[in-house]
Amino acid sequence: MSPWSAAALGDTLANIETPALVLDLDAFDRNLKRMQEALSGCNIRLRAHAKSHKCPEIARRQVALGAVGICCQKVSEAAVFVDAGIADVLVTNQIASLAKARRLASLAHKARMGVLVDDAQQVMWLQQAAADADVSLDVYVEVDVGSGRCGVAPGDEAVALAMQVDRSKPLRFAGLQCYQGAAQHMREPAQRQAAIAQASEWACMTRDAIVAKGVACERITGAGTGTFWHERDSGVFNEIQAGSYIFMDRDYSDNQSAAGDCAFEHALFVQTTVMSQTKSGRAIVDAGLKASSVDSGMPVVWQRPDLTYIKASDEHGVLALTPQAQLSLGDVLWLVPGHCDPTVNLYDELIGIRQGRVASIWPISARGALL
Amino acid sequence: MSPWSAAALGDTLANIETPALVLDLDAFDRNLKRMQEALSGCNIRLRAHAKSHKCPEIARRQVALGAVGICCQKVSEAAVFVDAGIADVLVTNQIASLAKARRLASLAHKARMGVLVDDAQQVMWLQQAAADADVSLDVYVEVDVGSGRCGVAPGDEAVALAMQVDRSKPLRFAGLQCYQGAAQHMREPAQRQAAIAQASEWACMTRDAIVAKGVACERITGAGTGTFWHERDSGVFNEIQAGSYIFMDRDYSDNQSAAGDCAFEHALFVQTTVMSQTKSGRAIVDAGLKASSVDSGMPVVWQRPDLTYIKASDEHGVLALTPQAQLSLGDVLWLVPGHCDPTVNLYDELIGIRQGRVASIWPISARGALL
Repeated sequence: MSPWSAAALGDTLANIETPALVLDLDAFDRNLKRMQEALSGCNIRLRAHAKSHKCPEIARRQVALGAVGICCQKVSEAAVFVDAGIADVLVTNQIASLAKARRLASLAHKARMGVLVDDAQQVMWLQQAAADADVSLDVYVEVDVGSGRCGVAPGDEAVALAMQVDRSKPLRFAGLQCYQGAAQHMREPAQRQAAIAQASEWACMTRDAIVAKGVACERITGAGTGTFWHERDSGVFNEIQAGSYIFMDRDYSDNQSAAGDCAFEHALFVQTTVMSQTKSGRAIVDAGLKASSVDSGMPVVWQRPDLTYIKASDEHGVLALTPQAQLSLGDVLWLVPGHCDPTVNLYDELIGIRQGRVASIWPISARGALL
Repeated sequence: MSPWSAAALGDTLANIETPALVLDLDAFDRNLKRMQEALSGCNIRLRAHAKSHKCPEIARRQVALGAVGICCQKVSEAAVFVDAGIADVLVTNQIASLAKARRLASLAHKARMGVLVDDAQQVMWLQQAAADADVSLDVYVEVDVGSGRCGVAPGDEAVALAMQVDRSKPLRFAGLQCYQGAAQHMREPAQRQAAIAQASEWACMTRDAIVAKGVACERITGAGTGTFWHERDSGVFNEIQAGSYIFMDRDYSDNQSAAGDCAFEHALFVQTTVMSQTKSGRAIVDAGLKASSVDSGMPVVWQRPDLTYIKASDEHGVLALTPQAQLSLGDVLWLVPGHCDPTVNLYDELIGIRQGRVASIWPISARGALL
């Protein structure tokens, strides 16, 4: 990591060294509040996804505002948040070895821990690890409700796995993971609505089939920032796992929206500096693909429609300028990352801005927690 | 970062937690040796690019084998290597603020430091910072020899900037940076050869024009893993900045090669585990785009032509299996990353393998050194 911090508390924007990951704290606060409002009075829990921020300071704020706990994607990521005092963590992923199951089980001495399964072998690893550690684990059967990635098919396969979990003390069958990831970035509102209607139907059918076998199915969990109001209104889901709503990236803002959709603001930016300008109509900034992940496309330059970020190399970004654009060496710009999650994962600190000054510097403690 | 390490010395491959970044130490040693052999007897210096590995243990080995020093791409990256004892570091990049120039100048108390310029203002910042810190800096004029990114045009613009540097004590005009980045991944050998022939012609013309003004131009530096033998044989370049040769990624191996090209071996891999397999012809591994950067395309599965990595999400990779492919939950695979530099930047440690066991664990100390 860098031997020094990009900023100090009280710095002006001009004094922040770049590239740096900055958070507009007012926009962030409004995003937190909007999510709570969107779920209030619905009997739907928020379990915020911490894979987006990897930052205990943010998780604490989400829990303080009413989130039941968090999701993580990796066991080592979960360990960071458990160590930071988060009391209820669901690892929304499968575990593929007994060694990793033991890592997970050890965390259950300090927090309520949940995990997904889509295979009988995973259940056996978890059962052995939990028994040896003398803990209980919440186990959710992942159902593929359209993502086409992990998860068993809705219906019989899910029922069989749920019954295996239910028999496998000290595991506790907690419910179904029904995340429709493929729907999150469908551009048209009607596509997203239809995808979640289908996912909800499969989730409902699977839940009812499990209950018909005499096994309780407490929780139907899933949803993301692009669709969660449909899950909220489905009558089936009772927990929401949105994560990106706190930041919002370019890819999410490329979704078209319809009346009734829940909208959030861009709050996360990469601050960058113009470092070279030797050609007409072009400029080079100091934030490349090691500063803003390009897996979902290029970042956009915030509030500068005269500038287009057209190409990223490792440590350089190429801007195209309109003929009218005014830009000079040393100028500071903000980029909206194409994809917030992997961009956050490139930084060790998140610099909070309020009224034009650095108001907080939060460690991104689970950055690089891949295991 | 992860609260625990993915491996311990002496572990077998099966005991490494995944995803993990592993280095085949025998292949790595052969790559180091091949580069030294390729440059021996040519009066061409190797200044290995450390942006690829960010690892002082590797830089020390490169210097021990004859490299004159290293390149870095960022000042904070350079600071990590200077702190680790590397005595000669060239930052192959422009500096766009007086504050960052002061950071660079402070390193010159401990090591010989170089940097690039392509603008008169950068020279002024460097001059002030060097004078205030009472140090000298080697300053190279970057010439755009076909990359289309940073750098002034060959000829008059470069001459004017070189003369400004030469007048700006305590700066020392050290030569020309002539890196043809765009040529590195041209697929056809003839394209690469033609691009470097053109770059060499521009470099030569610019050098001669500077010398004609009575200013010495000691160093012509540049080149990368995809073309360096052409720069070596150009009669113009006298320093090579290759970095990826130690690791080799999928993107480099996609280059076609001709007789006389210098070939290196894949030595860097992401070890991953099959975590879910619920659909015929598909499997999910635990290494997604936070474990293997996809900016230059998908990784390939090492020595498994029956498996194709077709899609990456944040923490999942999707494999397509041929009908004959045998694969089970928990199986361990090695991936060849699409692009080594940003992949290394995702990890805190590099796990060295020799004879099937973990023989070294090196910190990637400059991981995330973006400033």
